[in-house]
Amino acid sequence: MGSKNSTTAKRADALRSIEAIVQAAAHCLGQNPEASLSEIARAAGVGRVTLYAHFASRAEVVDAAMSHAIARGNEVLDTVDLSGDPLLALARYIEAGWHLVDQARALLAAAQRELPAGRILELHAGPAARVEALVARGRAEGAFRTDLPIPWMVNVLHAVMHSAAEEIRAGRLAPDRAADHITATVLAAFTSPGTPVPEAGSGA
Amino acid sequence: MGSKNSTTAKRADALRSIEAIVQAAAHCLGQNPEASLSEIARAAGVGRVTLYAHFASRAEVVDAAMSHAIARGNEVLDTVDLSGDPLLALARYIEAGWHLVDQARALLAAAQRELPAGRILELHAGPAARVEALVARGRAEGAFRTDLPIPWMVNVLHAVMHSAAEEIRAGRLAPDRAADHITATVLAAFTSPGTPVPEAGSGA
Repeated sequence: MGSKNSTTAKRADALRSIEAIVQAAAHCLGQNPEASLSEIARAAGVGRVTLYAHFASRAEVVDAAMSHAIARGNEVLDTVDLSGDPLLALARYIEAGWHLVDQARALLAAAQRELPAGRILELHAGPAARVEALVARGRAEGAFRTDLPIPWMVNVLHAVMHSAAEEIRAGRLAPDRAADHITATVLAAFTSPGTPVPEAGSGA
Repeated sequence: MGSKNSTTAKRADALRSIEAIVQAAAHCLGQNPEASLSEIARAAGVGRVTLYAHFASRAEVVDAAMSHAIARGNEVLDTVDLSGDPLLALARYIEAGWHLVDQARALLAAAQRELPAGRILELHAGPAARVEALVARGRAEGAFRTDLPIPWMVNVLHAVMHSAAEEIRAGRLAPDRAADHITATVLAAFTSPGTPVPEAGSGA
């Protein structure tokens, strides 16, 4: 019984340390993609030895931080209404998703440096599935083009959202214009050849 | 005279070494963004000491390799006819530029790891100026939308081209479909709200 309690306590300690490290990593890497493991351990209030006891490499820390940020992003996206007119639903997704990308851009830079492209796609599978479903519905309802594959259209949406983050970082785009520019671009990109591009903010 | 000849000969040697290192770097990093400086020196037929005599850091080698690849890309783009119907000119630019992006994608990955985003934009200033001029002409002639800034439209074109390279690397896009998908996407993205999206391969 004493031994079991001690194991339970150790496990609870370990879980607390891991959670503190993951949150500190998401925060530190979100400020600076080159934040060191020492800085992350310090921000988490644990020693380097504890950090290395739980994570074998910098890549593992970055992976956990990215997973954490995406899980939080999924919670935000859960609150976005993706029903109704697909054009307006897409605009709402961009408005919410754009802020997540904006907040996570330094973390994504760290991920792009440490993790294989395939792993980054895998981590984005949750958000991607949401957009895939929306694009498929928009195609079925005649709002979006059907001459390009759905995965390509999802890729275009995310590529344009991510490029906006880079344009802001390079000082070439004002953050408050990003959602409008992305929406105007993607609504046009998703329009069938021969069909007029919808006016921004308009329904189908 | 002997001394002058010897200086000239040394300078010629140095230029030959630098050129060999830059070409080897563009080749090796184009195969594998993580190629080491030792591998690059070996491929160039010089010692590591010679490499370090000319380049202070890995970032300098990557920068020189990227500059070299972009200069060669500019030579290719010089042969593309960007006059006439802006829609067809854009399709020709994508057809040629896409292959350059495809060939340079590992090198670009190395550059994204080693160089600041601002430097990568600066290195792309030549290709960017070309597209800027084409986009400006297409807007003046009524072929492209004017409700978004020119730098944003140039960014969208390059973001979609680069994302295609990543989709291919992830096994989600067949290389022979890339130019068609990019062209169909960007022609639509560049269409004014209220105007029909041009059919692929059609003129204005």
